[in-house]
Amino acid sequence: MSFRIFFAPSGKQGVAAEGETILSAARALGVDLDSVCGGRGICGRCQIGVEAGEFAKQRIQSSLSHVGAITAAEERYAGRRSLASGRRLGCQARICGDLVIDVPADSQLHKQVLRKAVSDRAFVVDPTIRAYYVEVAEPDIENPASDLTRLLAALNSQWGLSAIEVPLAALPGLQKTLRAGGWKVTAAVRDGKELTALYPGLQDRLFGLAIDIGSTTIAAHLCDLTTGETIATAGTMNPQIRFGEDLMSRVSYAMMNEAGAEAMTDAVRKAIDALAGELADTAGIDRTLIVEAVWVGNPVMHHLYLGVDPVELGGAPFALALDQAYAPHARELGLRIAPGARAQSLPCIAGHVGADAAAVLLSEAPQSRDEISLVVDVGTNAEIFLGNRARLLACYSPTGPAFDGAQISAGQRAAPGAIERFRINRATLEPRFKTIGCEAWSDEPGFDASVTGICGSGIIEAVAELFLAGILRSDGSLVGEVAARTARIQPEGRTFQYVIREAEPRIAVTQADVRAIQLAKAALYAGVKLLMEKFGVEKVDRIALAGAFGSYIDPIYAMALGVLPDCKVENVTSAGNAAGTGAMMALLDRGARAELGALVGRIEKIETAMAPEFQRLFVDAMALPHKVDPYPELARHIDLPTLSAPTPRIRGGRRR
Amino acid sequence: MSFRIFFAPSGKQGVAAEGETILSAARALGVDLDSVCGGRGICGRCQIGVEAGEFAKQRIQSSLSHVGAITAAEERYAGRRSLASGRRLGCQARICGDLVIDVPADSQLHKQVLRKAVSDRAFVVDPTIRAYYVEVAEPDIENPASDLTRLLAALNSQWGLSAIEVPLAALPGLQKTLRAGGWKVTAAVRDGKELTALYPGLQDRLFGLAIDIGSTTIAAHLCDLTTGETIATAGTMNPQIRFGEDLMSRVSYAMMNEAGAEAMTDAVRKAIDALAGELADTAGIDRTLIVEAVWVGNPVMHHLYLGVDPVELGGAPFALALDQAYAPHARELGLRIAPGARAQSLPCIAGHVGADAAAVLLSEAPQSRDEISLVVDVGTNAEIFLGNRARLLACYSPTGPAFDGAQISAGQRAAPGAIERFRINRATLEPRFKTIGCEAWSDEPGFDASVTGICGSGIIEAVAELFLAGILRSDGSLVGEVAARTARIQPEGRTFQYVIREAEPRIAVTQADVRAIQLAKAALYAGVKLLMEKFGVEKVDRIALAGAFGSYIDPIYAMALGVLPDCKVENVTSAGNAAGTGAMMALLDRGARAELGALVGRIEKIETAMAPEFQRLFVDAMALPHKVDPYPELARHIDLPTLSAPTPRIRGGRRR
Repeated sequence: MSFRIFFAPSGKQGVAAEGETILSAARALGVDLDSVCGGRGICGRCQIGVEAGEFAKQRIQSSLSHVGAITAAEERYAGRRSLASGRRLGCQARICGDLVIDVPADSQLHKQVLRKAVSDRAFVVDPTIRAYYVEVAEPDIENPASDLTRLLAALNSQWGLSAIEVPLAALPGLQKTLRAGGWKVTAAVRDGKELTALYPGLQDRLFGLAIDIGSTTIAAHLCDLTTGETIATAGTMNPQIRFGEDLMSRVSYAMMNEAGAEAMTDAVRKAIDALAGELADTAGIDRTLIVEAVWVGNPVMHHLYLGVDPVELGGAPFALALDQAYAPHARELGLRIAPGARAQSLPCIAGHVGADAAAVLLSEAPQSRDEISLVVDVGTNAEIFLGNRARLLACYSPTGPAFDGAQISAGQRAAPGAIERFRINRATLEPRFKTIGCEAWSDEPGFDASVTGICGSGIIEAVAELFLAGILRSDGSLVGEVAARTARIQPEGRTFQYVIREAEPRIAVTQADVRAIQLAKAALYAGVKLLMEKFGVEKVDRIALAGAFGSYIDPIYAMALGVLPDCKVENVTSAGNAAGTGAMMALLDRGARAELGALVGRIEKIETAMAPEFQRLFVDAMALPHKVDPYPELARHIDLPTLSAPTPRIRGGRRR
Repeated sequence: MSFRIFFAPSGKQGVAAEGETILSAARALGVDLDSVCGGRGICGRCQIGVEAGEFAKQRIQSSLSHVGAITAAEERYAGRRSLASGRRLGCQARICGDLVIDVPADSQLHKQVLRKAVSDRAFVVDPTIRAYYVEVAEPDIENPASDLTRLLAALNSQWGLSAIEVPLAALPGLQKTLRAGGWKVTAAVRDGKELTALYPGLQDRLFGLAIDIGSTTIAAHLCDLTTGETIATAGTMNPQIRFGEDLMSRVSYAMMNEAGAEAMTDAVRKAIDALAGELADTAGIDRTLIVEAVWVGNPVMHHLYLGVDPVELGGAPFALALDQAYAPHARELGLRIAPGARAQSLPCIAGHVGADAAAVLLSEAPQSRDEISLVVDVGTNAEIFLGNRARLLACYSPTGPAFDGAQISAGQRAAPGAIERFRINRATLEPRFKTIGCEAWSDEPGFDASVTGICGSGIIEAVAELFLAGILRSDGSLVGEVAARTARIQPEGRTFQYVIREAEPRIAVTQADVRAIQLAKAALYAGVKLLMEKFGVEKVDRIALAGAFGSYIDPIYAMALGVLPDCKVENVTSAGNAAGTGAMMALLDRGARAELGALVGRIEKIETAMAPEFQRLFVDAMALPHKVDPYPELARHIDLPTLSAPTPRIRGGRRR
């Protein structure tokens, strides 16, 4: 005797034999219903609702009497973990009549998760690693098959997994785990092909790490591979800083010192291993429950973490050793998580456009929109993507570290005491500013006067305000004549400076500071413009700013200074830690990795150093905001000065 | 225009286009013609002879004018490496008429090699690793594919290799090697699937290691993977001896000490790595040219080398952690050879029958004969195989260490000064003997009197001679009455002893020594007999004795003592270091590995501890030679004593 069954919300339906379990029927029909214990009533992942009602269109009349009685296993499970009212375990409930079955979201193997980030992409939780509960035959002296052979036989007969590889690191614990679990164990298997870890008994919570290796800081997120939740986040300074502040000085260190690259490799590996330990402690889990890591970084960070000397990245033709997504065992990188866990890198795109940029693509996904997006990730260099669903271009631009506050007379990293916001009174030409760590502005009560310097966003606003206040000409020269109106303009050699603060530490914007910012912004803008010319567009629909730069910069000032092209201000968004988010997406969804692999192949990589147009664009972009391009969108928000106009006025407020 | 071509000695023939190279035609016809450089005239592996003559049966008239002129590449090769008269490079010689082509043995990819060992099996040199010379595209800033991507593309386009995996250890040297070779490199690839190593320029000599990890000694052989030759051999004491003399004491050490297993793992890994270095130095090669290792050992040695605690092997049910052939990367085992090299173990057969026994099977191959072979490998335990092409049985027997000279009052390891041969004058009952390291017998001029003790083969001959001389009864008791005839029989407590030497160190065969040998031989014989009963035979056609025991023991004495069953004396052979030979065969011929994998599955494993017959057989085998089995074959060589006969006489000489 057989009955009609209908699964919601998938709409899948068919016929099942009397007495068949709902889990078995679901599998036969390809319904996405989870199970870790393989139908033993232990894990509770296959919970379903049995609807008493009628699915008229299909003429399926479902009744609570159409399903078998609650089993002993269900009672045990309900006693141990609680089973919501109306819920049954799909592996226990047997079909004895027509049924309409509801598969709740948390019982689906591929869970749909909505990102909280600014871009509203949804993604699926479908990790590479899955947990399989098995019951293994006990050893038999008459039939001396090894423990591993019997484990693999159980995975084959109970889950259909075959030809599973077993890494060396998974061997030492094998026999103890099998005995500790009384021959009932949970195997974590990667991609159906490799044994990642083995746990005694049922272990249905597994974790993953997403790691973003920046030149300055390393950030890591611990995620629950079942729910997709981020359980804990931690960051640390990149200890390679002691070998060189920026990328090129680290490459030089590797060139000049015998075991220089090895020392930097060792330092970053230890830091990441310590981060993993810190995250596991924070979450209160054993680090062997972390079954995979996905990591990203720029090409130099990427090569050093893998133990590859980055020397070839120090000069043309900037040859990467490898660019493909690569997944060595985590232990090979000194990362002590689950014994057979792998540490998967995302692919590098080009010699200056690394796996971190690839992660930004995953997160910002210009490739899945019809509008034209500009995605900019500014660090010491800028990685720039421009494109849409049809076509995607990438380049890097050597902006140098001025946007980070380096190479600026009073510049410093973003840290408490650094000026981060800056305004000039158009009438008095007096400054007012805000420092990191203090809510009050400098002309408000409660302001903490212990100012230490000026950081990247502060110097950008300061230069932009000097320009908007008429103190800077469009060519970037300080207008000496203004000294007649304010004592803040003071001569400095043959040029001038604008003094923000006379007291120690003295803080001024010098002509050299302005030149450094002009060079940086011209490099970035020329890169953007180069991609726009190659793509054949004059305007972008959206701009996403990734990284710290994007989090702190005010888009209006970035446009006023000519760092970014014109764009509707409301379409300029901060992508936050897009590289970290992208790494997390790749960790949680193996489909995202496949998508990225295919995408990287079709990106058009533009080498700025080789493009003859780049030099012209760079020169043109030196002017403020620059020489050629109009800013109609920006002009809705501020009055852009003409070459001599002294007091433009901001109309709108800051976006953030 | 096309021509008829015929290849000798394979007999393959067909038609080739005018101007096609002989290499290309050979490949199209499936002729086994080697090439490392892929047809560039560099490696010289594809040398062929072009016969001027006629292959009448096929009506192929070959003439020297039917082949193109000698090319510049051939002249360069001949200048560099010399090309034998009449030889051409198959990749250069072009077809311009009907041809009979001779492929000499050294140009065949699968070389037939005749073993020098006692068993006359031929095997093929067809290693898992092959060398592929490629020319890699140089990096191009406009097309930023990584060095690895371009290398893999070259392997694909020039050799048809795809989806090659690259282990982490192969990455750090990649960029330097490509540049050192001027973008011409040789890739060592394992099984067409994994990059093992990369060498600048053409590297057509690659090497492999065959390693036999014994409880006492570790032996390793360095082989040329092209010719199959053994280039160097080295041995060392197993440093684990400091943790325990025999296997069980090492298992106990692992049980009793926190990091005991780790310490033993570390010790054996370091010793093997040192052996690899020693062999490379002896051969004058860089150790990175060693691209694979094949290793064998008993289950405890096997587990410890892999880093698996052998504790489960210390008691029933003697569960192996793994039994399958397993090939971790050599670096994971601390073996520093080629960066991506693997260290392949052979499969273990059962809890007491390890990968070393599997190697003995490869070497002795009872499975490829119609006659019934008995293969015995005696160490602390004995591994015993019995069978033929149709059926193969295996068991182990706990002989204990008496055969090694342990548990014997004057016993010692086989070392200079140890008595290894022993005779008793049937009339005078005086002994004469030979020690290791001295050619003269004790009653001959030039004998070195610095005797230190008695080793395994010495005690076996001594006990057998005592029996044959009528000094021992069939039940193993010393005949006190003989004391009347010789002062060498002296009382010892309630029993007697036979004194070989009164001077220090005093050497005697005591009643306890005889009992120890009786227990050991009974255990071995009971195991043999158990397999014979299970197989249903009363007689074996051949006996192969593996290991040191087999090399030193005289088969006549082994039979006279009842260690071995009756067999034609000329069919009893010493297999020498059969485990090492088997490891070498597996190293040189991947077909042998596959054969072994299939064989292990169909071996009938008999657990002696569980066989009710074993105890009965053991008791029966205590007698000398023993209680039940006749020795008609042995009786052609010596007079076996009846229970009281005092002076049997050896008719034939010793076999060796």
